[in-house]
Amino acid sequence: MNLPAPPIAASSEIPDVLLSLFIVLLAAKIGDEIFKRLKQPTLIGEILAGVIIGPAVFGLVEPNQTLEVFAELGVVFLLFWVGLETRLSDLAKVGGTATRVGVFGMILPLIAGFFGARLIGESTETSLFVGAALVATSVGITSAVLLDLKALKTRAARTILGAAVIDDVLALVLLSIVVGIADTGGVDVFSLLIVIGLSLGFLVFVGFGGIQLVRRWPDIFHAPKFAESPLLPAIILCLGLAAIAAEIGLAAIIGAFLAGMIVAETQDKHDFEKEVAPLYAFFPPFFFAFIGLQVELSAFGDPLVLVALVAVTLIAALTKFAGAWLGARAMGAKEALIVGVGMIPRGEVGIIVAGIGLGKGVIDGNVFTVIVGMSVLTTLIAPTLLKRLLERP
Amino acid sequence: MNLPAPPIAASSEIPDVLLSLFIVLLAAKIGDEIFKRLKQPTLIGEILAGVIIGPAVFGLVEPNQTLEVFAELGVVFLLFWVGLETRLSDLAKVGGTATRVGVFGMILPLIAGFFGARLIGESTETSLFVGAALVATSVGITSAVLLDLKALKTRAARTILGAAVIDDVLALVLLSIVVGIADTGGVDVFSLLIVIGLSLGFLVFVGFGGIQLVRRWPDIFHAPKFAESPLLPAIILCLGLAAIAAEIGLAAIIGAFLAGMIVAETQDKHDFEKEVAPLYAFFPPFFFAFIGLQVELSAFGDPLVLVALVAVTLIAALTKFAGAWLGARAMGAKEALIVGVGMIPRGEVGIIVAGIGLGKGVIDGNVFTVIVGMSVLTTLIAPTLLKRLLERP
Repeated sequence: MNLPAPPIAASSEIPDVLLSLFIVLLAAKIGDEIFKRLKQPTLIGEILAGVIIGPAVFGLVEPNQTLEVFAELGVVFLLFWVGLETRLSDLAKVGGTATRVGVFGMILPLIAGFFGARLIGESTETSLFVGAALVATSVGITSAVLLDLKALKTRAARTILGAAVIDDVLALVLLSIVVGIADTGGVDVFSLLIVIGLSLGFLVFVGFGGIQLVRRWPDIFHAPKFAESPLLPAIILCLGLAAIAAEIGLAAIIGAFLAGMIVAETQDKHDFEKEVAPLYAFFPPFFFAFIGLQVELSAFGDPLVLVALVAVTLIAALTKFAGAWLGARAMGAKEALIVGVGMIPRGEVGIIVAGIGLGKGVIDGNVFTVIVGMSVLTTLIAPTLLKRLLERP
Repeated sequence: MNLPAPPIAASSEIPDVLLSLFIVLLAAKIGDEIFKRLKQPTLIGEILAGVIIGPAVFGLVEPNQTLEVFAELGVVFLLFWVGLETRLSDLAKVGGTATRVGVFGMILPLIAGFFGARLIGESTETSLFVGAALVATSVGITSAVLLDLKALKTRAARTILGAAVIDDVLALVLLSIVVGIADTGGVDVFSLLIVIGLSLGFLVFVGFGGIQLVRRWPDIFHAPKFAESPLLPAIILCLGLAAIAAEIGLAAIIGAFLAGMIVAETQDKHDFEKEVAPLYAFFPPFFFAFIGLQVELSAFGDPLVLVALVAVTLIAALTKFAGAWLGARAMGAKEALIVGVGMIPRGEVGIIVAGIGLGKGVIDGNVFTVIVGMSVLTTLIAPTLLKRLLERP
């Protein structure tokens, strides 16, 4: 029975949206189970499931806004969980190294991307966008692998998390500069200072401030008013900080990570972890599968595009690895390797930056496709390497 | 920083969507806490929170598709939970009464709505739509109250659940007839038989069949392949049956209810309830708040519309009560009262039917507004009455 759309919020699309949620979750679970048996990182199975049911292969499901929101909530709850497992003091201990990892891990891909694009004749604006798209690490992917292997408490994991926060602030500043140049040909120093001020202010006031607040009132989520369950107030905090971070222009997951660290300061962290677990089981598969849903294979029929994809992926992976490894090399050979590999995945972040460039007409469809392909490939390469490194005695 | 929309799935809307999810969840939680203190049904607090933050009062949040999907999943997980608490044998015991409640509870509002609308000069098509919009009960509201008061195991509650399933099938058949008349001036018996066949087939094959299957293999969700947690397979089943039910034209919640009953046949139901609890805490507030978000007050400036609202609400509430009470009167005075009141809320179902009528041009904006208002008012009246009846010794 095909009923027409009622005027309020397209109600008749609900059955189809439910169906797409069902198909994505089922496919992701199947991919997950297959890769568990193959002893490969399960998130790769979920991403490939997205590729298979998506436009690239069978076209059963198109990316839609609801799926995108579920994907975003997937990585938000993932980083909330990671925050629950992280203490500020642990991050502070690796602060210096994390900063070096973040900075070097940004500079090398930016330079390589910019000059690489210039070399093949792209304009300055386009080359800047390519450089920017190569910069930002998607910490969601690495976090999932670290969680899966129960390696979140290691020093290398802390360093990656700290570096990811710094990486995201740097990427935001860089993106603001690049967008400014594309829009007006120059950089508006004043609005740049606002971006920097807002993002640092958010980190310091909300992160440190929130943690101090909860340390002073450790039962704040357990006050009699929330007697029933402290879960919902914690989830509301997570959504709120994620939304604010996203409105500022930072990644939503930075807010979720801070929210997790704040909640972790309350007394009975373990109750939270048990309560959040079902949300963590439900949403993240959408995050991984959605990456796969965004893959388009048709453009790679052109051998030039395919060559560009391989080259860009190698440059993106090697320069990020080299920069992060350089920043972390004081930690010793093995840990520097883990940090270097852990920073490689670009995931959804590279796709978003490329999308902005495409929207501005600064990069064309082929460059966009190559960057999306690079984001997915770096995301597929890193977990397998990381799993091997972490499981090696 | 306002970045333009990237071409893929409107990524730049994500921060605003996260913000709207945050505001709705926060407001619903505050409404819930206030009504808990007032010893009133908390879902009314959540609906009113939606009215206050929505277009009717402050306009902080507009209904959007993501919120609608969350609302739908809210009532889906609510009925999944109710299904977990329900045994087929318990439903079968009240089958005769539930059928009578469903049938009488449909006939009286239909007749009253139809002739009432004819009386004030509406056309036959319009009057049929008004009648149909008055028919369908929203069992989500009553279920939430019954769950809240831990009264799901009572015979009256079983009767309401059974009647709701029958009510939904009857409402679907009626809607198909009414839509057919509006579209072609007549009823296509063949397509009507398909609707009836599909919905009964779904109930029998999926409901009974699924339950028999699980009875035969009670550890189906615990097979070694799902060793990690049986939650996700159960959720996938819930989403799948909800989607199929919705695609057929039944309410998605009927599928979710069946899925809950099927999962409840496995060995350790209590594990499921504990695992589903966080999803049940997270999603349903969106369902209740979304009802409030859909309220528009501006049309009620016209006193005639206001009078119509009061009249239609009274007719809708009294005829549904009378029909259901009539069907249940053999159960005794008190239980018949509970069943009668429990069937009153129209909630989202009345709004959806009215929306279809508006989309077809069969009912106009004022009639639509009145039906939406009636749906919300019946939803606000019933829980308070039901709470009193159930708490009375």
